[in-house]
Amino acid sequence: MPSSLPSWLQPIPLVETLRLELAPPHLNDNAGDLDRLVRALKQEGVTPIHVSPLRIDHLVREIRNARFNVAAVVGYASCHWELLDVFPLSYEEPILAFAVDLGTSSLAFYLLDLTWREIIAQKSIPNPQIPHGEDILTRILFARDEKNRQTLQKLLLDSFNHTMHEMLEQNGFHAEQVFAMAVAGNTTMSHFFLGLDPTHICREPYIPAVNRFPFVHARELGLSMHPEGLIYVFPNVGSYFGGDLVAGILAAGFHRSEELSLLVDVGTNAEVVLGNRDWLIACAGAAGPALEGGVMERGMMAAPGAIDRVRIDPLSLEPSYHVLGDEKPVGICGSGVIDAVAEMFRVGILTIQGKIDTSIESPRILKTPDGPAYVLATGEETADSRDLLITEIDVGIFLKSKAAMYTILTVILNKVGLSFKDIKRFYMAGTFGNYIDPAMAIRIGMIPDLPLETYRGLGNTAGRGAAMVLLDRSLLNELENVCDRITYIELNVNMELMNEFRGALFLPHTDPRLFPSVEIPERSRG
Amino acid sequence: MPSSLPSWLQPIPLVETLRLELAPPHLNDNAGDLDRLVRALKQEGVTPIHVSPLRIDHLVREIRNARFNVAAVVGYASCHWELLDVFPLSYEEPILAFAVDLGTSSLAFYLLDLTWREIIAQKSIPNPQIPHGEDILTRILFARDEKNRQTLQKLLLDSFNHTMHEMLEQNGFHAEQVFAMAVAGNTTMSHFFLGLDPTHICREPYIPAVNRFPFVHARELGLSMHPEGLIYVFPNVGSYFGGDLVAGILAAGFHRSEELSLLVDVGTNAEVVLGNRDWLIACAGAAGPALEGGVMERGMMAAPGAIDRVRIDPLSLEPSYHVLGDEKPVGICGSGVIDAVAEMFRVGILTIQGKIDTSIESPRILKTPDGPAYVLATGEETADSRDLLITEIDVGIFLKSKAAMYTILTVILNKVGLSFKDIKRFYMAGTFGNYIDPAMAIRIGMIPDLPLETYRGLGNTAGRGAAMVLLDRSLLNELENVCDRITYIELNVNMELMNEFRGALFLPHTDPRLFPSVEIPERSRG
Repeated sequence: MPSSLPSWLQPIPLVETLRLELAPPHLNDNAGDLDRLVRALKQEGVTPIHVSPLRIDHLVREIRNARFNVAAVVGYASCHWELLDVFPLSYEEPILAFAVDLGTSSLAFYLLDLTWREIIAQKSIPNPQIPHGEDILTRILFARDEKNRQTLQKLLLDSFNHTMHEMLEQNGFHAEQVFAMAVAGNTTMSHFFLGLDPTHICREPYIPAVNRFPFVHARELGLSMHPEGLIYVFPNVGSYFGGDLVAGILAAGFHRSEELSLLVDVGTNAEVVLGNRDWLIACAGAAGPALEGGVMERGMMAAPGAIDRVRIDPLSLEPSYHVLGDEKPVGICGSGVIDAVAEMFRVGILTIQGKIDTSIESPRILKTPDGPAYVLATGEETADSRDLLITEIDVGIFLKSKAAMYTILTVILNKVGLSFKDIKRFYMAGTFGNYIDPAMAIRIGMIPDLPLETYRGLGNTAGRGAAMVLLDRSLLNELENVCDRITYIELNVNMELMNEFRGALFLPHTDPRLFPSVEIPERSRG
Repeated sequence: MPSSLPSWLQPIPLVETLRLELAPPHLNDNAGDLDRLVRALKQEGVTPIHVSPLRIDHLVREIRNARFNVAAVVGYASCHWELLDVFPLSYEEPILAFAVDLGTSSLAFYLLDLTWREIIAQKSIPNPQIPHGEDILTRILFARDEKNRQTLQKLLLDSFNHTMHEMLEQNGFHAEQVFAMAVAGNTTMSHFFLGLDPTHICREPYIPAVNRFPFVHARELGLSMHPEGLIYVFPNVGSYFGGDLVAGILAAGFHRSEELSLLVDVGTNAEVVLGNRDWLIACAGAAGPALEGGVMERGMMAAPGAIDRVRIDPLSLEPSYHVLGDEKPVGICGSGVIDAVAEMFRVGILTIQGKIDTSIESPRILKTPDGPAYVLATGEETADSRDLLITEIDVGIFLKSKAAMYTILTVILNKVGLSFKDIKRFYMAGTFGNYIDPAMAIRIGMIPDLPLETYRGLGNTAGRGAAMVLLDRSLLNELENVCDRITYIELNVNMELMNEFRGALFLPHTDPRLFPSVEIPERSRG
């Protein structure tokens, strides 16, 4: 993230150190010690500035210690500033900050040096709330009880403190040097982080307690940072369109782009944003856990032992695959499933209805008591010595998920009277968005049939967006504007979906004209 | 303070209840619960509004409890608003507030109902810090040690809580109904209240830690009010020109008057403001404790047993006097001393140099080992059976104080090139300002020889000014402007003083043309 721009062109971080030689006290200038600093800050445009009443005594002592030549650490809080601390003019310590991707399954921390504009360290840990529910809905139900809500918050904050402490110590820093944090999470996780009741998030009409969170001070949450440290929690657009997505909009550059772009965060819910710097429309809909490999018998998250890439030889029908972590295969993750279904379709194992053609004679095609299946890995190859099968039932579940995804995309474009070909950039974010092979996803009709260069994986957009805000405070106001401009459609109740959905249940679609680039194998026509 | 203005013309108090019927949650309007309220407040012009992060959970619960028809209690904090609490629409409890005069020797509390605009109760208590120093300088020295400073603050806050609790209970109210407090004190007392170090106040160049205090929340000081209650501490203009005086400027109406006015707060220091709504000049100088009756052998504060009025028969030289509290005299307070000296001068006992004319044959005039004296009350009349004397030494000390006062007034007028006759209103505030008889004070040359109707006692200006701000939030910004406009002169180091001072040491002055109304007795010419 280091920038080669000249310093006066570089964006200004959320927290910065201003070096000020204050006019010394004099009989003809009897401004109070603190007023003297506030006056000098005002001359620098840093106004109005808030000072925590209980910190005045400390600040004034530091101003005197510094003999009125001070390094003032100030934070930008959108409609005002905050005076975070005062040091002698010679203070040279960097201003540190944490960008946090507050995910349902994992938390990613980025330790930034705002002064030198670099990432010092990063670390991911599992979300400590998982024992109280793998998925967010279970946790929302658990959190109905206020005590449980406190438990969930405490788990998070303890994990934050532990991880932050570790990262700081390993790099020779300490908590008091951390003056800011930006947290991008989905709506529910952000509620948990701030100890808010998420009950109404999952009930029609799906209303969060808060969409636009106020700035919080580290001391208010008991976070191991500088006590006055500013914590920015990304705003939500709706119950199913959280701060993680808003950070994603930033990371993808929607707020500054003239071209029509689309961002989709693929997970249990598919969240979609369409637009450019002038307008934005967003929606979220249930895609089902199949896209995360969560429902299929051998489905798993992208972790060591997961098959993430599959190819099938069209003649022998023998598969080749790639396993994460160079291990024996344990299961198959989302991108692996997309590959597997796409390849099974290409070589004619799957019909356009998603049925396995059992008339094919091959050791790879079995008839099991649960129905037909394709043997992706034999017991000799797998970690548990059991065959790793892709069953017709698995495929059926998966088709619903991919159909949901395509339907959501169709509906949002219909809403604004545009068609897929108008999209110039198609960003894929989220847990496995980065791993999807667009060619494969197009072949099965999960995403539209656009030139492959339109597609772009984005990696951890939430963490990236959070870091961006920390490094460029002007983005705070841009974000505010972005949120004001977003039109949000609640798809959970959209009837149009059902009709679109039926057509999308096929491979690639009942209307093949939508996927001109996809060659439909003769055998697959069923 | 109840006003008969139509409601739409009445000033709006610092804290008010806004009744809002929020748009109910709907699929097409997915604003968060809190955002919904913030949006409605914005439409009422109440923006930007701050919400304490740790209170969101409570506020959202109340919004839901109220089914989105809420009574929102909002406080005005000058450059932003604060959302203090939320109740159901039917909430009818009054919004209470305390105005506090934070004096060196006593604290005066006024319990106000901001909704109905009336004073519910008032109560004065001695300043609980007195055991650590009668005068403010002793306390400043005591407070050098941080622990002692904490002790002084705790004494104050405990007294506040105790008194407030008592006043609320007696009137059937409770702490949670108190949403605001305005505190007007001198610079040092305001520092003690907020736990700030006053060390530099009493050392050249006399710089306070802070002149403009930020708003404080009740919870931050541990005051027994609503935890989010807003506490406004009046700003200081300088170390010897505190928030009590600024409140006085408000109470005297300087900020809105076209006429030239002068306000003097008479005490150990004489603080003076001169000006009108367009300009203000202020200064403070040591007048010596004599004006408070603090140095003379039988001097005392205005309390039961103090002689506060004196007349002397010009023929018999026999005195008549009034004693506070209908008791036997114990001592003499400031206004009594002024009367006594003025009468002694009028009847020819004192020369213009302030000497007692011992050539007069009268049982009232004694020659004591300590010099000549006048017997104001004999041992038969006094509480301790000792003669109550006004000695020549007492008079000498007193003349220095009155000369200091007159000098300060002269210097401030010279500064702006005006003369006393330009003054249309002369306000006297402070502990005993209200009790001074202007005719007497003119006769001894303590205040200028202006028409008597120019003079006006103001009573507790600090408490009044504090109540005014609570009842009219627009005054907050006017006050800010007033403080910006005040030119403050530090008189402690003004050389011009010494020359003026010498002339003012006489009765009424070396230049009798300055006091044309004062008849100088033939005998007194010495």
